[in-house]
Amino acid sequence: MIRLYDVAKRAGVSVSTVSNVINGRTERMLAENLRHVKEAIAELGYQPNRAARFLKTGHTPLIGLLAPSISNPIYGALAREVEVVAQEKYGYRVLVGNTYRDPEKEMSFLADMLSHGIRGVIIVSPLLEQGHFEESIRRGLVAVSYDRRSIAGTNLAVDYVSMDNSKAARIAVSHLIRHGHRHLAYITASGSTVSRMDKIAGFLAATKRAGLSATSEVLEGRVSSGYGDAEMAQLGRNFAEQIAARKQRPTGIVAVNDLMAIGFILGLQSFGLRVPQDISVVGIDDMFLSAYIEPGITTVHLPLKEMAHTMVSRILYRLGNPQAGTEEFTFAPRLVERGSVADCKGRRK
Amino acid sequence: MIRLYDVAKRAGVSVSTVSNVINGRTERMLAENLRHVKEAIAELGYQPNRAARFLKTGHTPLIGLLAPSISNPIYGALAREVEVVAQEKYGYRVLVGNTYRDPEKEMSFLADMLSHGIRGVIIVSPLLEQGHFEESIRRGLVAVSYDRRSIAGTNLAVDYVSMDNSKAARIAVSHLIRHGHRHLAYITASGSTVSRMDKIAGFLAATKRAGLSATSEVLEGRVSSGYGDAEMAQLGRNFAEQIAARKQRPTGIVAVNDLMAIGFILGLQSFGLRVPQDISVVGIDDMFLSAYIEPGITTVHLPLKEMAHTMVSRILYRLGNPQAGTEEFTFAPRLVERGSVADCKGRRK
Repeated sequence: MIRLYDVAKRAGVSVSTVSNVINGRTERMLAENLRHVKEAIAELGYQPNRAARFLKTGHTPLIGLLAPSISNPIYGALAREVEVVAQEKYGYRVLVGNTYRDPEKEMSFLADMLSHGIRGVIIVSPLLEQGHFEESIRRGLVAVSYDRRSIAGTNLAVDYVSMDNSKAARIAVSHLIRHGHRHLAYITASGSTVSRMDKIAGFLAATKRAGLSATSEVLEGRVSSGYGDAEMAQLGRNFAEQIAARKQRPTGIVAVNDLMAIGFILGLQSFGLRVPQDISVVGIDDMFLSAYIEPGITTVHLPLKEMAHTMVSRILYRLGNPQAGTEEFTFAPRLVERGSVADCKGRRK
Repeated sequence: MIRLYDVAKRAGVSVSTVSNVINGRTERMLAENLRHVKEAIAELGYQPNRAARFLKTGHTPLIGLLAPSISNPIYGALAREVEVVAQEKYGYRVLVGNTYRDPEKEMSFLADMLSHGIRGVIIVSPLLEQGHFEESIRRGLVAVSYDRRSIAGTNLAVDYVSMDNSKAARIAVSHLIRHGHRHLAYITASGSTVSRMDKIAGFLAATKRAGLSATSEVLEGRVSSGYGDAEMAQLGRNFAEQIAARKQRPTGIVAVNDLMAIGFILGLQSFGLRVPQDISVVGIDDMFLSAYIEPGITTVHLPLKEMAHTMVSRILYRLGNPQAGTEEFTFAPRLVERGSVADCKGRRK
């Protein structure tokens, strides 16, 4: 491995001159020396040793991504967007921790990060309780919390980056109402997370405002594991079975996410109901598969790329500005129309 | 941050005694000193600084995963399995690099890993040409190549871990033949990769052996980007449109992977054909969504968990045994029957 010493020798300068070049302290340097060092670095293919640099700066050019499971396509997509921004814009790499919504695993990941010299982390933790992050943040971790807003009474020193989840649900409800639907249902996994609660609140507010409280309902179902990917689609299928068996069915469904909508739509079809002719469905997320299901899923777009950009930028800004306060960023959802919503039959009578 | 010095002070021993404990050199130590150090570590919550440790051992407890894109569900699933084994069995974390089948990005990821002190990497690079990995391996990187076998004429010093892809295709063909299908087609993305070529070879060998060469065909289609996730499903949909428009259709289809099978099946349905009544389909991979499509996809199971286990174990074994040679591991595929294959109608006449 090429070392600082080798570069210095080739350039005919001291090791500290080379170190100054690598660390950008070149203002007072002779132009000739700077040129020699740059040439020597290029000729030898020298790459600054980042672990050694960490001992000086206190952090390495890595950020962490703590998520329930990146095999869930929506977190896989998030991980990609984060890695693209971190790498292409800032030259940072991403360390992934799958933590399965387990506070023990979450704490252990953060502790490992600190011991690796990683100081910035994106936390995707739907758990309501976040107290177990406090110690790592006190020890210097710069954290951004994804997909949750700040809640009165908690004061974790993190940035919050989320979509307006309540609004996402309201957009979905409004779209169904515009198509004449008055019997609505919201389908979701049980288990309280901030984003799920916000979506339910949005659904209830929108149906109430339209005078549809009496004919609308929230259906919650259990998933076997907490971090669900296949489980979400399976739960959607269970809801399809349950609703297909009813005499009085809701005609417009809002699903907590597209994975559930996929399971629900394919489930309805296998139980002999048609989407959108018999039941209209709106998802939330706009994941890539939603365009390939038949019919394509009308859904509320989650601006993942923009959110990833904000999260990475905030971490690097706060790493460079330790005195900066934390902020909250809320992204606007928008409707993407595909084929899973039709006018309510009742309307045409 | 608690330092070695603080532990030594609390324990009433020298810094080098603490260092010996942390690095497992305790054979000649007074039992009393060992106990004092352990107590001090526990009381102070000391965590060994891994970057500092790297400067001694030459590598950090991280392994890299270089993949085209972990937002492709099959690579997301791989990333999870790798992280689970690395973390739970060995206490290693995983650094992810999305490289989009771009040799420049692949080289840059490996160079970054070396400069982070990471010495072990799993390479998922379907590119035929692998010469650009040579330098990093010469510089000490311990690499396992996923989903490709060794090829005569190349001698990259890596372990190879793959499924028997030729056999996977043969299993799929045999299953269709058992159900009476004689007009078979294999649908795939164009672009030569070792695993794709092996699957095509397996398809051709199995159809030839059954005397079906004249009535079987390989269909290749272009995807817009090289790393495809949505693109694979879209290509499957294109094949569905193309085949639906024919007068003479194959009755049994083998798809290069489940994502393509999903796009193909949903596409056929939207063009008015039924699966499996009109056309039978076999996928390869057994990804989680394949069970939730209607009908569930009969597919060839890729033993991802077992392969992840082997890859991580090999890296850690070779990191600890630098003289160990490289090996090749080939995993057996197996059929998973769901609902996408039926007896060929012609058979019943």
